[in-house]
Amino acid sequence: MITNIGTILHEKLDGKDIALRGWVHRHRVSGNMVFAVMRDPTGVMQITIKKDKVGEKDWKDANNAYVESSFTVTGRVKKDDRAPGGYEIEATGFTLISQGEPFPIAKDLSDEYLLDVRHLWLRSQKMNNIMKARHHIVNYLREFFEVEGFYEIAPPIITKSGCEGGSTLFEMNYFGEKAYLTQSSQMYAEVFVFSLGKVYVLAPSFRAEKSRTIRHLAEYWHLEPEMAFYDQKMNMDLQESMVKYAVGKMVSNHSELLKACGREPEDLRATIEKPFEKMDYAAAVEEVNELGGKMEFGQDFGADEEALLTKGAPAPMFVTKFPKEIKAFYMKEDPNDPEFVLNNDLLAPAGHGEIIGGSERIWHYDELVARMKEQNLKIEDYQWYVDLRRFGSVPHSGFGLGIERFVKWTLNLDHIRDAIPFPRTINRCYP
Amino acid sequence: MITNIGTILHEKLDGKDIALRGWVHRHRVSGNMVFAVMRDPTGVMQITIKKDKVGEKDWKDANNAYVESSFTVTGRVKKDDRAPGGYEIEATGFTLISQGEPFPIAKDLSDEYLLDVRHLWLRSQKMNNIMKARHHIVNYLREFFEVEGFYEIAPPIITKSGCEGGSTLFEMNYFGEKAYLTQSSQMYAEVFVFSLGKVYVLAPSFRAEKSRTIRHLAEYWHLEPEMAFYDQKMNMDLQESMVKYAVGKMVSNHSELLKACGREPEDLRATIEKPFEKMDYAAAVEEVNELGGKMEFGQDFGADEEALLTKGAPAPMFVTKFPKEIKAFYMKEDPNDPEFVLNNDLLAPAGHGEIIGGSERIWHYDELVARMKEQNLKIEDYQWYVDLRRFGSVPHSGFGLGIERFVKWTLNLDHIRDAIPFPRTINRCYP
Repeated sequence: MITNIGTILHEKLDGKDIALRGWVHRHRVSGNMVFAVMRDPTGVMQITIKKDKVGEKDWKDANNAYVESSFTVTGRVKKDDRAPGGYEIEATGFTLISQGEPFPIAKDLSDEYLLDVRHLWLRSQKMNNIMKARHHIVNYLREFFEVEGFYEIAPPIITKSGCEGGSTLFEMNYFGEKAYLTQSSQMYAEVFVFSLGKVYVLAPSFRAEKSRTIRHLAEYWHLEPEMAFYDQKMNMDLQESMVKYAVGKMVSNHSELLKACGREPEDLRATIEKPFEKMDYAAAVEEVNELGGKMEFGQDFGADEEALLTKGAPAPMFVTKFPKEIKAFYMKEDPNDPEFVLNNDLLAPAGHGEIIGGSERIWHYDELVARMKEQNLKIEDYQWYVDLRRFGSVPHSGFGLGIERFVKWTLNLDHIRDAIPFPRTINRCYP
Repeated sequence: MITNIGTILHEKLDGKDIALRGWVHRHRVSGNMVFAVMRDPTGVMQITIKKDKVGEKDWKDANNAYVESSFTVTGRVKKDDRAPGGYEIEATGFTLISQGEPFPIAKDLSDEYLLDVRHLWLRSQKMNNIMKARHHIVNYLREFFEVEGFYEIAPPIITKSGCEGGSTLFEMNYFGEKAYLTQSSQMYAEVFVFSLGKVYVLAPSFRAEKSRTIRHLAEYWHLEPEMAFYDQKMNMDLQESMVKYAVGKMVSNHSELLKACGREPEDLRATIEKPFEKMDYAAAVEEVNELGGKMEFGQDFGADEEALLTKGAPAPMFVTKFPKEIKAFYMKEDPNDPEFVLNNDLLAPAGHGEIIGGSERIWHYDELVARMKEQNLKIEDYQWYVDLRRFGSVPHSGFGLGIERFVKWTLNLDHIRDAIPFPRTINRCYP
């Protein structure tokens, strides 16, 4: 019976005879012994192959194995406190499935090289752990919306107009016509406010960002909920509940995985347990300047300003009520303060910065058209979107979360490119 | 307390005072009465507004309402066997949230017009039901893979090369370079066979299909699992289990919704309970010809041939072992019959046709390179993919399911465009 490493560790199969399939993670020959560390999808396990305990061909195979060669091993599980995980396998058989060639990835290779061989670098323990954690995080986010009674909808990727402005649109040839890759599915999600009520999208979005930063991708996964009859307060409460839910589940169920990714689970405790701090834009600008930053009223926060603002913060914090003129046309004016909009960013601490942007949407036709004229937008470019306000409109709110930014913060990664298997940046769309 | 229609029906709130928010589905004025059918995200409900039971402004609002106007109503729930669902509301208050304009969708409008106003047509009960059912189907598919221990991975959409041939590639401008929208994430999923073992992708794929048919979309959602150490038999078993799981859950948990979409749940019984029929390509060609079709050995099945083959079938059927030369280069040869490959299509009955294509993959470097040369493919266009076989390769299999085709069959829809909110076809990428 073929088992796996996770089962051996979990069920403490000390003394049992087992068979495993996997890959060589480390390999060392020492006289009449081969020491290997095996990896499979569930973990790593130390294996000793003694010349006098295996057949001749098996001994040859064990000697000939390269790092990343695939193989099967049979043997007995033995408790050994020095081994990682506390167990090792004493081999009675060792067969190469595919020896292959010497693996091209060793230590101290450049980031660029590792991106060139991303299809192989994804076999590393580092990327394995991150991709597993990403899987769980995305599942918990979906689970949250399932519990809250949302419907998931599938928006189009190919569109005729942009949502966040023309300069970062990717253009494409659609059967001879110009079309664009979506920057956000928000407008399409808003369609469903008037039928399914509470919906979310989880789909790729695209931004032709020319900036090379540790938190921008040209292609990223975008979680975009949109809720009928939600005002901005309910919107922010939902965001906070969602973050607490996903992070809470990760800490409760995957603390070892978090540690393996570089995140101390205890550092997420405040996020789960304490209410998020809220600060309005005007106060946040003052705060930035007091902390030594330089910012004018009416500017948006950059990475440096967000880092200053969240420096001592134990958890994500909301910044609310931005000036109308620096925000998108669909955000609703604050009725008490019409120079500002009913919106929020959610900033993750320790320099991770913005992970969510949300707002109450303008739901009256006249108000939307007036704002679009103020911002010199052509109504006809957004005709179907404006139409939504012509037929039984209702108040609604929504937000957008960048999955890779959320993963980067939750796992405390240095760079956003590691939060996605095949990062797309200004100079790279290969492999 | 604001409730919703589903709760009233489910909890049988006869005699209770309630408040609802929603939209006018139907509307009729008759003397001192307004009869309305209200819709909200959970259902439809009949409402009677009597002039002498509501205030003056409320009576005016009830009279002024258009189809699709949004409103709130307060009133008492009353059992009424003539009403849809068995209950109606006797209004004590009626307030328009937004009257809006007369709704442009009435009966007997052309398909093209309904596609032009898709953002409004999605409010119809028909599209509401389909979108809810799609949500559940996709959730059950994911649930199946979660239970089976798969990891979900996020592939890139923007790529440098095609998987299914150049003629249906959408080209785009990637920071001044030529790039393409992915046709399939299979190759990227295969990367993870060597680390996470069993993975799946659920992401958009793109085909610049010039054909206008009832089962082609230029943009569709593609479910692509890939499994280490699976041979073609295990691959087909997995496909069958997956279909049985998702369809079984729909029949058990959402039979009313299935009926509302036009699918008689009992017609799915054989799919859930009987083993799927398997027929190899050669036999299937003979069968087509016997049934009155005209097909040469070496041709692929078209819609007509698939319809003939599945005519009397009570459930999806597998067609296996296609001739090597009409199938993709990555499919493994049948060792007993090297003119054929270890692959399958899965055909849905009643003319719905192909919903899955799967195969065992070539996992030896030399075999893959030889096949690519046979098919006149350039190795350098697929360098990273070929690389996967150079370092500890293992046997593996996988398949691709078109979500919209699966939804079309499960719900027995006439046209694939209704299985996705905003269909993209040769003449349409708006709204």
